[in-house]
Amino acid sequence: MKKTSSTRKLAVKGFQFAGISSGIKKTGDKDLALIFSEVPATTVGMFTTNQIKAAPVKLAIKRLSGEKKCQAIIINSGNANACTGQEGMENAREMTVKTASALGISHDLVNVSSTGVIGEQLPMNKIIKAIPDLARHLSPSSLDATANAIMTTDRFPKVISKKVRIGNRTGTIAGITKGAGMICPNMATMLCYILTDISISRKLMERALKDAVARSFNRLAVDNDMSTNDSVFAMANGLLGNSPITGGSDEYKEFSNKLNDITYDLACMIARDGEGATKLVEVIVKGAKSEADADKVAKAVSGSMLVKTAVYGNDPNWGRIVAAVGYSGVNINENRVDIYIGRVKVMSNGIGTNREKLARRALQNEKVVITVDLCEGNKMVKALSCDLTEKYIAINAEYRT
Amino acid sequence: MKKTSSTRKLAVKGFQFAGISSGIKKTGDKDLALIFSEVPATTVGMFTTNQIKAAPVKLAIKRLSGEKKCQAIIINSGNANACTGQEGMENAREMTVKTASALGISHDLVNVSSTGVIGEQLPMNKIIKAIPDLARHLSPSSLDATANAIMTTDRFPKVISKKVRIGNRTGTIAGITKGAGMICPNMATMLCYILTDISISRKLMERALKDAVARSFNRLAVDNDMSTNDSVFAMANGLLGNSPITGGSDEYKEFSNKLNDITYDLACMIARDGEGATKLVEVIVKGAKSEADADKVAKAVSGSMLVKTAVYGNDPNWGRIVAAVGYSGVNINENRVDIYIGRVKVMSNGIGTNREKLARRALQNEKVVITVDLCEGNKMVKALSCDLTEKYIAINAEYRT
Repeated sequence: MKKTSSTRKLAVKGFQFAGISSGIKKTGDKDLALIFSEVPATTVGMFTTNQIKAAPVKLAIKRLSGEKKCQAIIINSGNANACTGQEGMENAREMTVKTASALGISHDLVNVSSTGVIGEQLPMNKIIKAIPDLARHLSPSSLDATANAIMTTDRFPKVISKKVRIGNRTGTIAGITKGAGMICPNMATMLCYILTDISISRKLMERALKDAVARSFNRLAVDNDMSTNDSVFAMANGLLGNSPITGGSDEYKEFSNKLNDITYDLACMIARDGEGATKLVEVIVKGAKSEADADKVAKAVSGSMLVKTAVYGNDPNWGRIVAAVGYSGVNINENRVDIYIGRVKVMSNGIGTNREKLARRALQNEKVVITVDLCEGNKMVKALSCDLTEKYIAINAEYRT
Repeated sequence: MKKTSSTRKLAVKGFQFAGISSGIKKTGDKDLALIFSEVPATTVGMFTTNQIKAAPVKLAIKRLSGEKKCQAIIINSGNANACTGQEGMENAREMTVKTASALGISHDLVNVSSTGVIGEQLPMNKIIKAIPDLARHLSPSSLDATANAIMTTDRFPKVISKKVRIGNRTGTIAGITKGAGMICPNMATMLCYILTDISISRKLMERALKDAVARSFNRLAVDNDMSTNDSVFAMANGLLGNSPITGGSDEYKEFSNKLNDITYDLACMIARDGEGATKLVEVIVKGAKSEADADKVAKAVSGSMLVKTAVYGNDPNWGRIVAAVGYSGVNINENRVDIYIGRVKVMSNGIGTNREKLARRALQNEKVVITVDLCEGNKMVKALSCDLTEKYIAINAEYRT
């Protein structure tokens, strides 16, 4: 019974999950998910910075403004409900109303997320018909079902949870996310739900989440396209019963560190499952004068299509890496830059080291680490990426056909 | 004798061309080219803004500073002479010295360009051995040979020339260029040589060239990578014998317009020949409040990998186009935006029009025009791109293997 023990390990006190097929996806795959907290939860959200925002994103921004709590999130995949005008807004609202009624709670405690194709109206008859059934499927151990039902081109569900010691109690933070295309450094075509039983104020949760997202999803490049639906929700229902975490405390540090670990691990899963990807790429930029500099260089290298294709082809073409460093916009001293592929130094002080055979071997791993040392200071940043393959093209050329 | 007449048509008074194989490319393809003006020519250059600049670029920036003229440019493909340190600089200089000696001119009248793989030293023995032979091949009608010898992953040579009426004389402007990867909106992995017999001051030529490059090569996106070697040279040898063109004159306008046409046509050739591309994509953004706004939107749409793959797959997925509009950084009113694929309006006032069958047909052309009307003002910009195919990946994954 390995599965049961692993899902039991994932569970978060007071949260229940469901994921079913409602017929939005023609394949019959799961496409409707529900996250429910037994009590209203302190909830913060971070959303796409794309000016074209999907209807559910607009609704969530409104519903989470002020100090409003949230008790349930209904999520559909297969249709983004974006560029759908007034009808799309009404459909998003209708989903919250029907969900609230199935759960016996107030509709303004419900939020919606949608992911999938842009520009088509939701098949509302199918969704409305499925909602009562969805609510009946709720269970504390069904995180996997939810993670499955929110997938679009993802190949595997993405769930993680970690225990956090808060005083003499042990709380839990769980994360559920999906990728896998339109992934660019400012969030991604991704949805992410962070759930915890730990009591923490809205303000502190917001701070911890912003920090965690900045170091994970905002440093993740699959294809540099930014979607209309990107959303990260964090819900804290407080059922652990700890006294609320205070700013600057050891508990806050512990909470924040664990949250960082969770979002970074989830971002790794998204990169590993990038559309068509065969490898996870971690770009480490160190020796920078400032974190902002390191960040720019890391984004240029991790976002470069030529670096991504070279990784795919096991080609230790460090010239493409240094070219990306050069166009990152950061002032560098080219005669100082060192580049490593895995542990192999392929460029030293701006010149090749002729160690490409070794580097080629390092590229054959499923996780490839590229390190750029600017040798100018002591700031460091990590960014995530994946290789770019023919399969990415096939997936995106044929997405709707 | 169709070929002779067409190359005769391309010729520019006082310029001679050559292209041969020197053995840099293992395939035996042409890899060494020479452009020679019978008299020293007023020459301006525009170069990559990448901080990592190849040795020949550094040399050219120095040699063209001040009022220095140029009489010959030697170009090799197959090796970029970038990230090659002091040895690379000496090799670039050595190429000018050997070329000057073969031509019987001063070495500081010679410039070099290199294109190809980054980080390897040039095979100087082969190049030095080939230079006298290269000089012997010079002929006024060999533009095609030069265009051939500067190709890397290009599938076809790129040459164009146009007649320009200057007073009662007829001058010529010719352009030779190469693509086809690392093509991003700020120049590209491209070399371009503009050659004219028309007399024009350095200052005016500079102005005309900047304007032309801004409207062509700087609005061209193949993969958003910026190379270390991008160079545009413009040489005016004045052998037409016109009195030098003056600023603000009709002649300047005529010259500038023709130069714009030439660089735009060359940019179209580069896009059409983008690595793995099957289609040329022209992105027209109109109805913008400012040209800067139109430019940003055009770059976001033309650079989007998801738009490129959708074009490849004949998928009228306008949602990806509007998503790119939304992340362009320009303030838009989403309820006003119209999008056309070919002549088919696929989005009207921010909502789909359900005309995708027609749009799918428009995508089947070899040239696809995407028009975004922001309906906010009267500024317009055109940008160039191409579709993204499995072949791009194959070319770049296997580039050096």
